[in-house]
Order: sequence, then C-alpha cells, then structure tokens
Amino acid sequence: MNDNKYILRAIELARQGMESNNGGPFGAIIVNDKGEIIGEGNNRVTSTNDPTAHAEVVAIRDACKNINDFQLENCTIYTSCEPCPMCLGAIYWARPARIVYACDRKDAADIGFDDDHIYKEIPLPINERQIPTDQLCRIEGVEVFKSWAAKSDKTEY
Amino acid sequence: MNDNKYILRAIELARQGMESNNGGPFGAIIVNDKGEIIGEGNNRVTSTNDPTAHAEVVAIRDACKNINDFQLENCTIYTSCEPCPMCLGAIYWARPARIVYACDRKDAADIGFDDDHIYKEIPLPINERQIPTDQLCRIEGVEVFKSWAAKSDKTEY
Repeated sequence: MNDNKYILRAIELARQGMESNNGGPFGAIIVNDKGEIIGEGNNRVTSTNDPTAHAEVVAIRDACKNINDFQLENCTIYTSCEPCPMCLGAIYWARPARIVYACDRKDAADIGFDDDHIYKEIPLPINERQIPTDQLCRIEGVEVFKSWAAKSDKTEY
Repeated sequence: MNDNKYILRAIELARQGMESNNGGPFGAIIVNDKGEIIGEGNNRVTSTNDPTAHAEVVAIRDACKNINDFQLENCTIYTSCEPCPMCLGAIYWARPARIVYACDRKDAADIGFDDDHIYKEIPLPINERQIPTDQLCRIEGVEVFKSWAAKSDKTEY
C-alpha cells in the first residue's frame, strides 16, 4: 500500500498551491489501479475566478482529460482535506472506487472554510435552505426530458 | 418579473445542448440584478469528458469569467432542473441570491439521472457511504492549514 506516498503528494500540492497564491490550501490527486497518478489539482478559486476550482474538481477534470473518459472507475482520489459537498458530488459523478483524505471538515472550519455549513444546507427541504429557491415552468422543462428519453443517439452517463 | 423569460432560456439551452449531443438535457443561466444574462451553460459531460460539466457549473464558470469575480452576489441562477448536490454545492460557493429551477429531482430520476441517490449519500456519516473513505496523515495535512492561517498575503473566499 502506497497510501502514505499518495496522500503526502496531495498535501504537497496543497502547500505548493497556497505558496503560489493559486487559492486555498488544498491539493488532490487521482491514482489508477496500476498505482499511476493520472490527475493532479490544487485549489485555484481566487487565481482563476472560478468558485468550482477546488482541488478535487481540478484533479478530476485533469484525470478525465488525460484518460479521455468521464468516469474514474477503479481509481482512488487522495485529497488533502475531506471533500466539501460540491467535491463529494463531483466524486460521486466520476465514480472512483475509493477516497482518502487528510484533514477533515472541522480542520477546514478552523481556518475559515465553512464546508460544514453547506453540509447542513444540502439535506434540508428546499424551502428551509438559506438561498431562496423557486420552481417554475416545470411542464416546459419536462418536455425536454421527454425528448431525451425518446432520443435514440444519446450517450448516457 | 422576467422569471419566465429566463427560465425558458435555460430550458432552451437544455434542448440545444441535448440536440447538439453536448451531453444531458440540462441548461442554466446566470442573471445579474440589472436583468442581464452574464453567463450561460448546458451539460457537456460526455462531449468534453468532464463529469463536473453540469449546466450550472458551466454557467457559473462562464459568469465568473465574464465578470472577473469568484462570487455571484445579487445574481439569480435559472436552471432547467433542480441542481444536483455537486451543483448545489457550487451554487453555495458562488453565493448567488436566488435559485429558480424547472424540473425537479424526481423528473430527473424518471429519465435516468440519479441525483436523488447522491442527495441521500452526502448527509450520511462517512463510514456509511457507498464509496469507501479513509482518513490518513491528518497531522501532516493540518501543518499546511496552519501555514495558511499564518499567511499574510492570502486572498480569502
């Protein structure tokens, strides 16, 4: 098991990204079942004006680009901090086999990253969440979904 | 209120993206408090091999790039379908003022998109989730966080 080597690489990326002023102190890598690092990332939110550029998202996008696939089957994601809900959602869509993390959400909260707040919001009923949310034009929206269901040349994911 | 106009634009992007085989049948736009559309997106997962390229993420990245900011204060996101947890997390990080959606997660499930499964996984304790998850090298990870806390030239977000 090379888990230590890989998680330390993710932590190293966190430090490098922070010291380069790319963004917050977070790093992540994707490792395939041969032990090869197929994607790397560090947080780049503030340097690229992209609130989605968390380390895990950057690493997933990098790995998928490198292997020309939108799935990371049989891969492990090593991340220097427990994924926030956005990143955890991204991980579920990318479908790696395993997650290894170093710091947890409480450590993140201690330095001002409020992942825990988002973890609490997501399971709430829509009308109890902090961001006001309305549903509109469902019938028009569902028409497109029906077209998708009937579409013969679609690529499912 | 131009809510109808904007949500119908998001639905139109959903249809266009689907018909162009960009990805799934989802579209989103970002509108600022002047009523200007500052970002648009449709799902591009399968055409760009990017599992994070959901309509909302694409629209948020587009809007943030256009306004040179990593926050979408006072903006509304219109999305043709209730955001999945990844996208909802992205929305919380981008901090728009409001969300308007057309189809909901049950409509998405009806055409094969299992957002609901991810909604159920995210609030679970880590050891009860489907993706095996381990914590390792927390002490080494926290060292980087301490450096961030002490860093004098950081950009917070």
